[in-house]
Amino acid sequence: MTDQEKIMYNAQGLVPAIVQDQNTMQVLMMAWMNQTALTLTITSGLAHFWSRSRQTLWKKGETSGNLLRVHEIRIDCDGDTLLLFVDPAGPACHTGAVSCFFQRLEN
Amino acid sequence: MTDQEKIMYNAQGLVPAIVQDQNTMQVLMMAWMNQTALTLTITSGLAHFWSRSRQTLWKKGETSGNLLRVHEIRIDCDGDTLLLFVDPAGPACHTGAVSCFFQRLEN
Repeated sequence: MTDQEKIMYNAQGLVPAIVQDQNTMQVLMMAWMNQTALTLTITSGLAHFWSRSRQTLWKKGETSGNLLRVHEIRIDCDGDTLLLFVDPAGPACHTGAVSCFFQRLEN
Repeated sequence: MTDQEKIMYNAQGLVPAIVQDQNTMQVLMMAWMNQTALTLTITSGLAHFWSRSRQTLWKKGETSGNLLRVHEIRIDCDGDTLLLFVDPAGPACHTGAVSCFFQRLEN
C-alpha cells in the first residue's frame, strides 16, 4: 500500500486539507481535495483543491496570483485529514486577509 | 445574528474544528463538532467533539487525561470551519504522539 492509498476519502471522494504557513506556522485556510487535486498538488508543487460549491478543480491563486507552494504534506493518524505546509505567495483569503481565520467567535 | 449563528454546519449538523497548540503553533488534530459540542466547549473551556464513528459526544481527554483547554475559537471567512487555539494537557493523538499529523505523505 502506498502512502496515498492510506487516505480515507469521504463518501464524496473528498478529504479535508488544512493549510499552514511553514514559516509563520499560521493556519491559513481549510479546503477539500479529491484524488486528482492531490495528484496535481504533488506533481506541480502548488496547492490544488476541489471546489464543492462550483464542483470543479481549483488551483489556489490561479486568478489572484496568491499561489501556495507546497513543501510537505502530512496525513493524520486515521488517514482522513491532510496538513499542507506551504509558502504562500500572498494573502490566502479571498478577502485579502493573510488567513481565512481572522474572525474570533464571540459568545 | 450572533457569531455562533454564522456557523455553517454541514448536512449532518457538523463543522470541522482544527486544533492548534497556542504555544508551539503545532496543528494537533482535526475533529468534528455539532452545536452541542461547541456549546459544551464554550461553557467548560475544554474541547468537546462529536464522534462520527461512535455517534456520540466526546470530551477530548476524558479517558486519557489529555484535555485541551481552549483559549480562543476562530471561524473562517465562509463560516464552515473552526480553529481552536488550545493549551494541551498532554499528547493530542491516541497513539501518544504530540500531534495526529506525524506521518509525512510520500510519493
